[in-house]
Amino acid sequence: MLVRPLRNAARNVRSQFVTSFDCVSFLTDYGLEDGFVAACHGVAARIAPQIRLIDITHAVPPGDVRRGAAVLAQTIPYLPPAVHVAVVDPGVGSARRGLAVQAAGCILVGPDNGLLSWAIAAQGGAQRAVQLTNGDLWLSPVSPTFHGRDIFTPVAARLATGADLTEAGTEIDIREMITLPAPTSRVHGGEAEGEVMSIDRFGNVQLSIPAADAGRLGISFGSPVVVRCGRRQLTVPYLETFASVAPGEIVAFTDSAGLISLAVSAGDAAQELGLPPGAHVRLSPAHPS
Amino acid sequence: MLVRPLRNAARNVRSQFVTSFDCVSFLTDYGLEDGFVAACHGVAARIAPQIRLIDITHAVPPGDVRRGAAVLAQTIPYLPPAVHVAVVDPGVGSARRGLAVQAAGCILVGPDNGLLSWAIAAQGGAQRAVQLTNGDLWLSPVSPTFHGRDIFTPVAARLATGADLTEAGTEIDIREMITLPAPTSRVHGGEAEGEVMSIDRFGNVQLSIPAADAGRLGISFGSPVVVRCGRRQLTVPYLETFASVAPGEIVAFTDSAGLISLAVSAGDAAQELGLPPGAHVRLSPAHPS
Amino acid sequence: MLVRPLRNAARNVRSQFVTSFDCVSFLTDYGLEDGFVAACHGVAARIAPQIRLIDITHAVPPGDVRRGAAVLAQTIPYLPPAVHVAVVDPGVGSARRGLAVQAAGCILVGPDNGLLSWAIAAQGGAQRAVQLTNGDLWLSPVSPTFHGRDIFTPVAARLATGADLTEAGTEIDIREMITLPAPTSRVHGGEAEGEVMSIDRFGNVQLSIPAADAGRLGISFGSPVVVRCGRRQLTVPYLETFASVAPGEIVAFTDSAGLISLAVSAGDAAQELGLPPGAHVRLSPAHPS
Repeated sequence: MLVRPLRNAARNVRSQFVTSFDCVSFLTDYGLEDGFVAACHGVAARIAPQIRLIDITHAVPPGDVRRGAAVLAQTIPYLPPAVHVAVVDPGVGSARRGLAVQAAGCILVGPDNGLLSWAIAAQGGAQRAVQLTNGDLWLSPVSPTFHGRDIFTPVAARLATGADLTEAGTEIDIREMITLPAPTSRVHGGEAEGEVMSIDRFGNVQLSIPAADAGRLGISFGSPVVVRCGRRQLTVPYLETFASVAPGEIVAFTDSAGLISLAVSAGDAAQELGLPPGAHVRLSPAHPS
Repeated sequence: MLVRPLRNAARNVRSQFVTSFDCVSFLTDYGLEDGFVAACHGVAARIAPQIRLIDITHAVPPGDVRRGAAVLAQTIPYLPPAVHVAVVDPGVGSARRGLAVQAAGCILVGPDNGLLSWAIAAQGGAQRAVQLTNGDLWLSPVSPTFHGRDIFTPVAARLATGADLTEAGTEIDIREMITLPAPTSRVHGGEAEGEVMSIDRFGNVQLSIPAADAGRLGISFGSPVVVRCGRRQLTVPYLETFASVAPGEIVAFTDSAGLISLAVSAGDAAQELGLPPGAHVRLSPAHPS
Repeated sequence: MLVRPLRNAARNVRSQFVTSFDCVSFLTDYGLEDGFVAACHGVAARIAPQIRLIDITHAVPPGDVRRGAAVLAQTIPYLPPAVHVAVVDPGVGSARRGLAVQAAGCILVGPDNGLLSWAIAAQGGAQRAVQLTNGDLWLSPVSPTFHGRDIFTPVAARLATGADLTEAGTEIDIREMITLPAPTSRVHGGEAEGEVMSIDRFGNVQLSIPAADAGRLGISFGSPVVVRCGRRQLTVPYLETFASVAPGEIVAFTDSAGLISLAVSAGDAAQELGLPPGAHVRLSPAHPS
């Protein structure tokens, strides 16, 4: 999928019969202004005192499931084997289910709203999944608006300390889980078609176009590439990095997730190009071979 | 008080004769842009290398003691037994005292300006308190403007590793400590009266009205509630959660601290309602029974 | 240099023959919105599962090497002996070298663009330095735009777990490393001359003028000081702390790094005085003795 595997650092090989984890990670839209994240850390630390807690991010824009899914999928390949808690959950307290999903060497815990789906795909698909129904593992009482603290985190901490997935609830058919539509990503008619996956802190615009697809079109480092978005069109260099470009110039490059991205050297490409997440973009070589 | 106890996760029961802690927590207005928080973490890690450090928040608005007090009181019930360092300290370097206070299974360390008072009350009141006078536990020299790094954190780390409270300074009468006025919270004349405690990252407006008080007035889930603020009045549904409400609609709900709160689904209630912290609000059932 | 040593807390004395570290720290301009920091944490945790990770800051303005250098130099004296990873790296992917530098009881890892230089000077100068050339310690493949994750962090984690500096690459002449110009800081003609080092979260303006230099001019606590910046001039009190000043008043004080700083009580001095980083400032006693 859209995430490259971690090779050299993947030293802790695990069998499928995982019994416990040394790490719980968190990705939410809780922000850092309140005590929400700390409450989750505290709950995890009480249940699993020896465990390492890693924050993926808590700055997902409120309710932006797609953004959360993208960051989760692209980050967990670099984390140790872990139970990953992800909560971007505009439907908290509604009938939407809570899930714990085993995929490759990790477990993902969160709402059944598609948030986990890209990460699961990036890990090679789900092996087993349960709906969180065992209230014995939850805090009591459960706040209808804070399942992150009261359900997802305590369940994750129990799973990290060795509880089997099935202790968390009822096994479900993995095909029943809600998935986000995979981002557009195809090659046809001499063009690579994709959409804006994500805008990072630097304003770099990440496209859902793997570098490999660009390669198939004959787009290679050093050659110019045509970027089409709606009726607009511009030709920019495709380079290994934006370091060699003069400030203010636009460049296409392969980003750290292996995807084609657009940057403005020492500037904000998303702003300058007016490309929001989801915008459709097509790439082609400026001089087709 | 205004914080519900943590039940199910409270597995580490401790006697009153605490000798050491596995955790030091931090709540400050230092922000994350500078190295201030890291300096505190570093000082704690040098003194107590095995201890877990949990950040409650460092995004308290500069000098906003009341906001810090609210977040502290509502978060620490979910943390492991810990020494909690809290520093929102506009009077740093003045004659205001530094304190270490034992309350329930934890110790709170910070300035004597009311910041700790709501957390102490939520923990059932202070058992013992000392004024920080033992400079042997401080860094040397002490910066007059950074007691968090030079006094509060090293004292907390020593207390966490087993130093008795009285090693940190002179015992004081717990009634002498400065306390913030408890937020207005009463029921009379068929109304629950309170004030805005806190605005969270989502713009949700937390009132100092416990769900139990609303219940005493006959306000129950599914029934409409009248919200009065100054001359303004609006009637909104009181629901278990805001998930079932159409985007843009206002709803009252019980938040994760057990308090009545106002939300705008997929919106910012504080902004839309113009309700700042401290604003007085009255609630009553729309159809008194 | 411009950083005071940590005395009382410096309990972990180490010989020069360091073999391993308990801590890896991070300073970057990656922000917290994306998964970049978590990816670095994850890579470090995989290689060195027992190590403590301390974030100095990730909010350095993008590409602001000077700001990163100032925060790094002023913070690491308070951290445990550690391998410090610092990445503010507008030249990532270009020919600029990667470095690992031993200085006092720590190792610094990052790009050779001056970012490390003030910290190295504050630690008493470099003892040994290598250019990072041993790709066996890196992740594979290396992203041309994310050396923090793929080169600097895995190298740092290996060094923390006991690898010798020379395993990371080829030893270089320490005089060849790129250094930022030391900030102006001199006393002449009855004036202390400096520049704005840094603006902190509170808007306090830190000058590159050590308190000791002010002392040499006869500027002492309680006496007024003349601040000159371009054609502007103002006379402000020099006090131990800003706590005793009325809100809105300007005050000079010695900050927590031992440098003269300007604050506006309960306000933002940088904004009110219009003093950006790098601005030249002169101080003199209002009533020369």
